[in-house]
Amino acid sequence: MRVNEQQLRTIEYDAARDGLTIIDQTRLPHHFETVLLRSLGDVCHAISTMQVRGAPLIGVTAAYGLYFALRDGDASLSSACRILNETRPTAVNLAWALTSMSTRLETVASAHLASEALVHANALAQEDAMICEAIGEQGLSLLQEAWEAKKAKDGDAQALNILTHCNAGWLATVDWGTALAPIYKAKLAGIPVHVWVDETRPRNQGAFLTAWELKHQGIPHTVIVDNAGGHLMQNGLVDLCIVGSDRTTIRGDVCNKIGTYLKALAAADNHIPFYVALPLSTIDASLHDGLKEIPIEQRSASEITHMQGIDEHGELRSVQVALSESVVDNAGFDVTPARLVTALITEKGIALPNESSLRELLAR
Amino acid sequence: MRVNEQQLRTIEYDAARDGLTIIDQTRLPHHFETVLLRSLGDVCHAISTMQVRGAPLIGVTAAYGLYFALRDGDASLSSACRILNETRPTAVNLAWALTSMSTRLETVASAHLASEALVHANALAQEDAMICEAIGEQGLSLLQEAWEAKKAKDGDAQALNILTHCNAGWLATVDWGTALAPIYKAKLAGIPVHVWVDETRPRNQGAFLTAWELKHQGIPHTVIVDNAGGHLMQNGLVDLCIVGSDRTTIRGDVCNKIGTYLKALAAADNHIPFYVALPLSTIDASLHDGLKEIPIEQRSASEITHMQGIDEHGELRSVQVALSESVVDNAGFDVTPARLVTALITEKGIALPNESSLRELLAR
Repeated sequence: MRVNEQQLRTIEYDAARDGLTIIDQTRLPHHFETVLLRSLGDVCHAISTMQVRGAPLIGVTAAYGLYFALRDGDASLSSACRILNETRPTAVNLAWALTSMSTRLETVASAHLASEALVHANALAQEDAMICEAIGEQGLSLLQEAWEAKKAKDGDAQALNILTHCNAGWLATVDWGTALAPIYKAKLAGIPVHVWVDETRPRNQGAFLTAWELKHQGIPHTVIVDNAGGHLMQNGLVDLCIVGSDRTTIRGDVCNKIGTYLKALAAADNHIPFYVALPLSTIDASLHDGLKEIPIEQRSASEITHMQGIDEHGELRSVQVALSESVVDNAGFDVTPARLVTALITEKGIALPNESSLRELLAR
Repeated sequence: MRVNEQQLRTIEYDAARDGLTIIDQTRLPHHFETVLLRSLGDVCHAISTMQVRGAPLIGVTAAYGLYFALRDGDASLSSACRILNETRPTAVNLAWALTSMSTRLETVASAHLASEALVHANALAQEDAMICEAIGEQGLSLLQEAWEAKKAKDGDAQALNILTHCNAGWLATVDWGTALAPIYKAKLAGIPVHVWVDETRPRNQGAFLTAWELKHQGIPHTVIVDNAGGHLMQNGLVDLCIVGSDRTTIRGDVCNKIGTYLKALAAADNHIPFYVALPLSTIDASLHDGLKEIPIEQRSASEITHMQGIDEHGELRSVQVALSESVVDNAGFDVTPARLVTALITEKGIALPNESSLRELLAR
């Protein structure tokens, strides 16, 4: 994707420095800075502090962490996997990427472990970009249909209005994104899209990351508070919703950034399609009931009590927005039951939110 | 209510200075400061900048504005009413209080207009405090029932968990509050209440005002982002919701702070009672369909793009949290359809959300 007219990926292996260049997502949108990760410790820190975040991206980043661990002899394959897996408990892509790496490496002689790990990490990164582009192509068909239907109903329709929550854009993946990939494809296909961007408290990934991405890709968008989506849907201002997923059960329950469930309820109440875009690696086929079975990460209270922005001099600054004495609860994710999901957009096609449809896709 | 163990009201007429002392709610929770309003202009400024806010409170404050206008000869009764009415378009209490004042003053000789206006404004203030206390008593019965039922089901129950949105506490009224009045009464009655406080973006009235109020009344509470309520409800952590209202139609549609509708949807989805507490003056008997008929105030973009908090020195400071280029939409209210409301708690009793039940209460 483009940043200041330059073509970029969110993470790139730098062979000359034998490290991984990442965009520090905690500094966006006000500062665009890259950081070089050079060790297992660097990778764990980057994932747990959310310098890199987004289910697909943390999976691929962790794969490079495994490479660093093996190269430096910092940890065995299995203990490096365990350490990396504990950085974020909810997203399943982390476990998926580590399992995928372990499987590919289990028959490799120890002298070649590190170099093979790098080969596989690079392959995973490339694969992620291709998968996300395929999600974009699959989702494009839904957006095209929606735009045709809107124009047929209202010849004066100006734009297809899409609401998204959090950031499931290219910053959440290696390239293209999941929820935003169909929107980028739609723009390329000439569909006049307009995106309602949920601010997405507490970390403001919508206002900070999604708005920044959309600006750089030249896509019209409007930032709203998380409270506003229902009101917009009631008033006919949202044609469809697309969000990402951090873990999806085999029956189609979707665990995603906290607040997703509320938007899905509003979409259902207003007969608006609610799509979830995800790579198949986000499906945890061992789980059925998302509410009962998915562990929900509790994050730091300071994400709620403090807010980061820029001051009048353009300097990043954190201010305290809640009382110090206030007790705070900060669950990072919620579960949207399958019954509220219209369809799941994956790299291999569009599935209905039920076990047979998802198993059929997984088997392709 | 109490602040630092002192008994206070949100606004108080100061006879010695012939002005109205208000708490500057834009400085809370970090700074507790009062301001003396002395003219119609002062009152309009205080209402439009939300130094005073909350449907009942802006009604009573406007009544004093009318007194200042008549005392100073700044405007005729009717033009002062018009000027005040335009400060906030959504809450109906403003129009109600001004109409109530006008009716009481229409037969008064001009020489006595100002002094009579003051008498009536003081009466409205006193009446508001009594009405809110009565709302508290009415709501207490529901909380008592809920607590008894919870204990019967679970002998180990620790607290009655109540979720509220925005601030409909004593800061939104002259005293007691609307949504919080039953909670204050429950605390006095020995019910162990715990309140989930929605942060309530964009102005953070939950984290800023409700948390501050509850702290000073010694009520356990937890601040959450607006995205979290649905997740808590899905996990059995909310026993009931109580919110306020800025305007209620005769069939029971409730216009309240943006985001209320989303919580009502989640409550319905999880079979949790959703109560709305309001003085009868908040009912606009001329309206049926809240979505079609209630004007929704659009507020400044800066409420979303900027956030106020305290820095490391305890100084109030505003930081920019969204990109300058981001277009922002900031509707202040949404409409919760009557079908999602369990009951309306008023000073004269508890009504079902339908026209006959509300008309019966209004006729009492």
